[in-house]
Parts: sequence; structure tokens; C-alpha cells
Amino acid sequence: MDIKYNVTKFKNSKKEELKDSVSVEEPLEMRLKYKKDNKWNIQNISITMRTPGDDDDLIRGFLFNEGIVENINHIDDVSHKGEVVGDYNTKNVIEATINNTTNLEIGKIRRNFITNSSCGVCGKASLDAINILKKEKLNLSFPQIKHDIIMKSPKLLTDKQSEFAKTGGIHASALITDEGEVVATREDVGRHNALDKLIGYSLKENLLDPNRQFIACSGRLNFELIQKGLMANIGLMAGVGAPTSLAIDLAKRFDMTLLGFIKENSFNIYSNKNRIVIKS
Amino acid sequence: MDIKYNVTKFKNSKKEELKDSVSVEEPLEMRLKYKKDNKWNIQNISITMRTPGDDDDLIRGFLFNEGIVENINHIDDVSHKGEVVGDYNTKNVIEATINNTTNLEIGKIRRNFITNSSCGVCGKASLDAINILKKEKLNLSFPQIKHDIIMKSPKLLTDKQSEFAKTGGIHASALITDEGEVVATREDVGRHNALDKLIGYSLKENLLDPNRQFIACSGRLNFELIQKGLMANIGLMAGVGAPTSLAIDLAKRFDMTLLGFIKENSFNIYSNKNRIVIKS
Repeated sequence: MDIKYNVTKFKNSKKEELKDSVSVEEPLEMRLKYKKDNKWNIQNISITMRTPGDDDDLIRGFLFNEGIVENINHIDDVSHKGEVVGDYNTKNVIEATINNTTNLEIGKIRRNFITNSSCGVCGKASLDAINILKKEKLNLSFPQIKHDIIMKSPKLLTDKQSEFAKTGGIHASALITDEGEVVATREDVGRHNALDKLIGYSLKENLLDPNRQFIACSGRLNFELIQKGLMANIGLMAGVGAPTSLAIDLAKRFDMTLLGFIKENSFNIYSNKNRIVIKS
Repeated sequence: MDIKYNVTKFKNSKKEELKDSVSVEEPLEMRLKYKKDNKWNIQNISITMRTPGDDDDLIRGFLFNEGIVENINHIDDVSHKGEVVGDYNTKNVIEATINNTTNLEIGKIRRNFITNSSCGVCGKASLDAINILKKEKLNLSFPQIKHDIIMKSPKLLTDKQSEFAKTGGIHASALITDEGEVVATREDVGRHNALDKLIGYSLKENLLDPNRQFIACSGRLNFELIQKGLMANIGLMAGVGAPTSLAIDLAKRFDMTLLGFIKENSFNIYSNKNRIVIKS
């Protein structure tokens, strides 16, 4: 979702008044609705700044990727609440109704968390200490992927994006098959939201087949993105930008193949290079 | 802070094993130490994923920019706690001792917040509803800045960065004078951390002079970054990337000049263009 703003553009010593596209950024409050002791509870779980659109995919992906619901089918219904607000006529509250609270982990909302007592996370060795949601290594009969499919992924990402998105104002994630076919793409001003939307949609529509698919992201890959990918059992993640140290460490630990700096004729492999077939 | 990793580089149909630089990403637990009823309290206020280095600047900037302390001089002492951990031998806990708790707003940690009850933020019109910390418009006798100083800012940003940083693996923020002199720069894998570090350092060293300075950032400008800049009374923020809708709306409301897509020979002005002198 983008919108036109008045912009004064200065170029080659001249200024010009024009209307230019801008990515919309609005807050989204995510709520859970669940039954406990025969009574309905509504709980605010997070506020994120997101680009409106595909909010239902976003909350599904967020709940799954953050380990709050263990199965996408535990989410019954997702609907916007409250008034249409703001300059872009959006509803900024979304509520997911949970039909199975057996393993509902409301306390597991680690991302962006604030605790009132010291949590002890940072006093230990980093990777051991971080509450990594994924407990077991990926167990994939993951096929090898040809290098030319990898190098096509930045183009596959942008081909599905709007003209505006190609200017870099918004992040994108795409689910791509080992044959180079794009299964789905999602966009957002936040990288983590674009990935949550993509995985939420793919899970809901039962499109995820990690033995034959990988995920490409428009930007840099950090710890948070790799953790989200691991939760969805993704075996290969490819970033157009650089990975961080913790992203690489996490990928190595869980046998994910991590690629960075993907360009038309080059890329870097940071872990599990055996999954990439390079024919020279 | 960067570190060498083994990387398989594929380029022009050939693969090569090499060591390449990666930005370090590690968690940092931030704690406040303060006296209440004659007793010392220690409170965990946030965990952020950051690039180790300048952690003292980071916590100072965070506390100020998030409105938790109203005056930088209320922070007495900042020191690392706990063990040296991880592969990069860092301490990942930092504690700030507060000497004046009169207006200490621990509850004001809006960023990344999770509440247990609905907070009502998203049910109202976006900009009105968001708890904007800044209550008054900027009141600056802000000088006009020449267009050529603006266009030099991407180069000023990268000149002060390490060779590695220029590859885009890390974000940078710089405080620059109206004459084009760089007062300070700070780097981090997180944009918000780079800005917190920059402002924390500048406040501590008493370098901030908003009537003669602006801040340039390496990436895109979102709501969070503009809010942080407003807290430090910054009158002009310039991003190498795109701004979001909410960043522009916020800048307009508080009379900040917001620039985006800064290049060597062009840039866009999104608000308060009167502060930019363009001589053609």
C-alpha cells in the first residue's frame, strides 16, 4: 500500500514540485480471543508498525512464527475490530480467535519483550541463552537447488512487486520453488512483517512444501528473520543484503542454508553449501 | 564491530572459498538502577539485538529518546554487568544508575511494548493515537542549509565508516553541521540503535546544537527514527532511503524538515522545504 505525497525533488541543480509514492506505515494492534474456564478472554499481544494490507496473514504468521500457536489450524477466525481510522481508511486492530488453548503460549512472546525482572538471557553465551523457539534441527529431504535459480530470485522478488516497491521503499519476501516458480510474495515496511505475512498466508492456504521451496528476502537477514524461517521449517533463506553473525550462527546450528548478497551473477553461501548445485 | 566468516562466494560461474566480514549481532539487556524509598532497585527495561560497541552511548540515547529520563544528567553511571560471553567476548548486560527519579518514566517504554490489557492505541486515528512523546513543536532558530551540504551527506556518512560498513551490512547515523562537518557517527545492525548511540554520545559529550546541525541516516526513515530525532530537538533529518507515510506526517506536525533518497546530485524534500537553500 502506497500513497502519493507532495514532494520537492531537487535534481541536477533544479527543483521540481511533484507527487511521489510513499509506503504507508500504520500501527496494528494484534489481539487474541480465547476461552478459558468457559469464559472468553481478549488479550492484546503486540503492536507493530506495518503497511496496511494482508493483516490477516500477518497475525497468522506472527502467532505461528513466534511460537504462540503451535498449529495454524488452532486459529479459527481472524477479523478487524474497531473503527476505520486515519488518512488511509484502515482498521488498525485485528483479532484472532483461538480454538485450542492446550499449548497456547501467551508467555512466549519473546520478540520485543520487556520483563519486570531480570530475565537472565544476556548473561549467558548468546546463542545458548536466547530463547530459541525451534528445538530440533530441520529434518528435510531437501533437494539441491541450482545456482541459476538462486541468482534469479532478486528479479523474481521485484517482478511481483509494484513499480513503487522497486524503488526500495518497502521490503518483500517470496516463497519460491526449486524450479524457480514464485508461490507467493508479501510486502511491508518492516522486514519481519513481510516474512510473517508470507508464512501466515502460505500456512493458511496450505502452500508450504519446505522440501521443494526456499524463501528470498529483499533486505538483510538478521536473527529474527532466520528464527521465523526455522519455525516454518524453511531449509534455505536467501537475502539480497548481508546476514548478521547471529543469523549465520543460528542457520548453522539448525542446518539451514543461508545465502546473502544475491545478485544477477553472484551470491555468498554462509552455511550448508551442499544444498546448492553449482555447475561451472 | 565485524568478524570474519568462511564464505563460499559464487561469481561469474566460479566458486571461491574465502573469509568475509559480517556484522556482529548480539543481544543487549538494558537495566536501570535507581533508589526508591531508600532502597536500590534494579529493573530490566529492554532487550535489543545490537552490534557490540558504544553500548554506553546506546543506553543513554535509548533512555533519553524513549522519554524514560528527561535529562541526560540524571544518568550517573553506566557500566557493563555479568560475564564476558559468546564468540565475540562481549558483555551483554548494561546498567544505568539514575540519580534523579522525580520524573523517571519507567512506564513510558512505548517502543516494542506489550500490554496485558487493550491499550486503545490503534482504535483511534493513527497519529493522534500514538503516544507521541514530544508534546511541543520544535522551536529552533534553525539556519537554512545549502543543498550541496545535503548531497554530500551520504559521502560524509560512508567516509567515517569502516570499509566493511560500506558494503551495506550495517547502518550508520551521523550528526553533521550546517557547514558540512561531521560531529559524530555511530553504527549498528539496527537503524534505531545507530541513532540511539549517536544521540546518546552527543548528549553525554554536550555536542548537540540543533540550531546548526542535522542528522543523516544510511537507510530508510520510519516513525520510530523521526520520533527519536524529535526527542533530541533535531530540526532536519536526511535519509539515504525512502521515508514512510507516518515519518512524513510526524515530521510535518512538529516542523521537522524531512529529506529522503539523498544522492550525489539529487534528493527529495518531504516537509518544511524552507530550511533548504537551493541555488541553481
